[in-house]
Amino acid sequence: MLMPAFIALYYGEGDAPALFISSAVSITLGLAAFYLTRKNITDDIRPKEGFAIVAFGWIVSGLLGALPFYLSGAIPSPVDCIFETISGYTTTGASILSDIELLPKGILFWRSLTHWLGGMGIILLSLAILPILGIGGMQLYKAEVPGPTSDKLSPRVRETAKRLWYIYFAFTLIEIALLYFGGMDLFDSACHTFGTMATGGFSTQNSSIGQYNSAFFDYIIVIFMAIAGTNFALHYKAITGDVKAYARDEEFKFFMGLMLFVVTIITIDILLTSDSGFAGAVRDSVFQAFSIGTTTGYGTADYEKWSSISQFLLFMLMFIGGCAGSTGGGMKIVRIMLLLKYGIAELKKMIHPDAVVPVRFNNSPVSQDVVTKILGFFLLFILLFVLSTIIMTMMGLDLLTALGSVAASLGNIGPGLGDVGPTDNYAAIPVAGKILLSFLMLIGRLEVFTILVIFHPSFWKR
Amino acid sequence: MLMPAFIALYYGEGDAPALFISSAVSITLGLAAFYLTRKNITDDIRPKEGFAIVAFGWIVSGLLGALPFYLSGAIPSPVDCIFETISGYTTTGASILSDIELLPKGILFWRSLTHWLGGMGIILLSLAILPILGIGGMQLYKAEVPGPTSDKLSPRVRETAKRLWYIYFAFTLIEIALLYFGGMDLFDSACHTFGTMATGGFSTQNSSIGQYNSAFFDYIIVIFMAIAGTNFALHYKAITGDVKAYARDEEFKFFMGLMLFVVTIITIDILLTSDSGFAGAVRDSVFQAFSIGTTTGYGTADYEKWSSISQFLLFMLMFIGGCAGSTGGGMKIVRIMLLLKYGIAELKKMIHPDAVVPVRFNNSPVSQDVVTKILGFFLLFILLFVLSTIIMTMMGLDLLTALGSVAASLGNIGPGLGDVGPTDNYAAIPVAGKILLSFLMLIGRLEVFTILVIFHPSFWKR
Repeated sequence: MLMPAFIALYYGEGDAPALFISSAVSITLGLAAFYLTRKNITDDIRPKEGFAIVAFGWIVSGLLGALPFYLSGAIPSPVDCIFETISGYTTTGASILSDIELLPKGILFWRSLTHWLGGMGIILLSLAILPILGIGGMQLYKAEVPGPTSDKLSPRVRETAKRLWYIYFAFTLIEIALLYFGGMDLFDSACHTFGTMATGGFSTQNSSIGQYNSAFFDYIIVIFMAIAGTNFALHYKAITGDVKAYARDEEFKFFMGLMLFVVTIITIDILLTSDSGFAGAVRDSVFQAFSIGTTTGYGTADYEKWSSISQFLLFMLMFIGGCAGSTGGGMKIVRIMLLLKYGIAELKKMIHPDAVVPVRFNNSPVSQDVVTKILGFFLLFILLFVLSTIIMTMMGLDLLTALGSVAASLGNIGPGLGDVGPTDNYAAIPVAGKILLSFLMLIGRLEVFTILVIFHPSFWKR
Repeated sequence: MLMPAFIALYYGEGDAPALFISSAVSITLGLAAFYLTRKNITDDIRPKEGFAIVAFGWIVSGLLGALPFYLSGAIPSPVDCIFETISGYTTTGASILSDIELLPKGILFWRSLTHWLGGMGIILLSLAILPILGIGGMQLYKAEVPGPTSDKLSPRVRETAKRLWYIYFAFTLIEIALLYFGGMDLFDSACHTFGTMATGGFSTQNSSIGQYNSAFFDYIIVIFMAIAGTNFALHYKAITGDVKAYARDEEFKFFMGLMLFVVTIITIDILLTSDSGFAGAVRDSVFQAFSIGTTTGYGTADYEKWSSISQFLLFMLMFIGGCAGSTGGGMKIVRIMLLLKYGIAELKKMIHPDAVVPVRFNNSPVSQDVVTKILGFFLLFILLFVLSTIIMTMMGLDLLTALGSVAASLGNIGPGLGDVGPTDNYAAIPVAGKILLSFLMLIGRLEVFTILVIFHPSFWKR
């Protein structure tokens, strides 16, 4: 918060005090918590503590991160402040603001920075912590980023995190530089880069990236959305010399194949139903497919004007999401792939009940235990989606808005369908709905189990 | 087909020849098939043969059953004839007819009779055959209806089938009698009973049961829809003296609880949004909830005029469906229950990784193998739903119609949402769409795996 505070001082739009006070409150609370509990700090972390640290850490960050919005008066309602902050940290990018350009620069910068910080947290979580906690299939990535082979959790996590963050940081600098040299001012370049690398989607412009109407910016951002939606363990391998790692990775190939399929269909749809030329149709379909497919949520075109096939394909991409170990949300491509492979294997088993039909991923057999965990993840994701949609319709939302807002929150996309489409915002959602959607963003971002376990009675038993 | 042929003779509306010719064709083909293959008939049936008998048996019945519609000229297009017949046999009740009352009586009777025959087939399939083939969780019902403890498949199936069919037949006679004594004519009583007991939904009236505007008929049909949507093994137990079997069965209790919940919400919704009185609101919500919840599809009110919460609840019921071992379609309540229990157990396992958390049903632990099979079923059901919706939108259908028609076909309900809602019909769906939906009806009716396996290459290998 100190960084945007100094930016606020520089621009002098009156939001500096709010940011400095928020920093002071956060530092005070953080130090108090540290000194009051440090007697109990130990390296012996059991799953229950792991879940508690992750879940409550994110919730507390969401609450403290809301302070600048509230104290500066940029967002008057406390619930809206929390919604916006959790949307930021979870790299969702759903906003309750109808006129973003009115915000002072320091607050705008803080808003985009929450994305970037959240993205860092996610990479760490998905490649270093969740595999150890055994969350639905993330075990596959247990040894993806080689680190010191210590049995203790902390040094290993610390080393893995450092390596991944260097990469994240490097990509961030490169994208800022490219946008800046393409003619975007430095402030906007930084904010849009934060939104891209975290697959967040907060913009500094009311009409998002569409504001610039620049093919250069569109394609630069598409490339970095694709990078952000790819497993960072692959980037690590590529940077340490193994560039062919991408070509060997089934998940990455599936991701690219899926994008190619969706882009082709949407391009044909745009060509058939509008008078835009081929280049324009490709540009719009590529941008929207990658934006939704990586769960970023930047917009250059209103996909609600496209025909139902394009809309439904994008709706599906909201569920599929990015690669595991990326900053992208959704169910993750590897899970969808393994589910498809499992479905086909089950059919084969029906015909030959005694045959052993292993599910394979990247040439290794996947244990039945991992497949079952992924099936459980899929089940909980769908149940949450259905129950939340029921609750949202009970609040009086129409079906499309209810479906769209829940899918966009749970998948950490941002823009949904209906009244929360790419040209709208979440301001009109009832307060209870905003609270539910904020929870869904956290649930989706923390791979479902991490948040849901804290609602299970046995979590609270000694 | 001979029975409706004689009814056609009695009413003398010119459709008797078509029915007699269709009977002759069916008998000839059946006898030819029997005599040409009987050398190879054996009691040694492996899963592959089991699937082939079930899948191709239903497909051939669907084709032969379409003959009367085509030959009588009642339905001019062959694809429409097949759609209507498969919709009948699978007890779906989706119709391409816009004016049902124009049909001659013999054809109308045949149309309703396909439901009744299909319902008989389903009870046999779900309680006697699928448990042995090991279809997604149906193993739970392996020993539900006690029969001779022979190891051979045929005598056991034959005995079980006989017991269940007596019950089905008895309920059919009682409902016909009740409707007849309530003032419906005998012909319509029989046809509507066929549609009720099979949870089919074909009516002889253009405005379905709403035509009569009679609380008596509504509630009689609700009671028999509930009976038809309940596991017939429970009816068997009750009739053989164990009436408390209903109260002990978790699935039945869940079914009733779910109906109570949905009826309460919809009643409140109707009271808040219309000026109908309490009795009318209860009657409409009870009828529509049971009609969709048991996957029957009879209508007395246009639920598309209700608010989005009621519509979405009904949409959910389309997926949930009736009890296992009933004539109801959908995923089946027992599967949904076990999925919910499994989801909760998984959360508990996350917190205590070493704990053994068994999923229990009716006080017995359910093996992990059965749970995995049900997860696989759920997965394939959702995948089919999503892929089919994509294909339907590609044909130019709007999103709501695509979602509704696919859900209503796969769940064997009949009326869907959008342009295939309760006051519309399927006539305007493109030909390719009708073929896809017919397949979905078969897939849904035969518990997904039975049809899908025949598309797997290894099914065709020696």
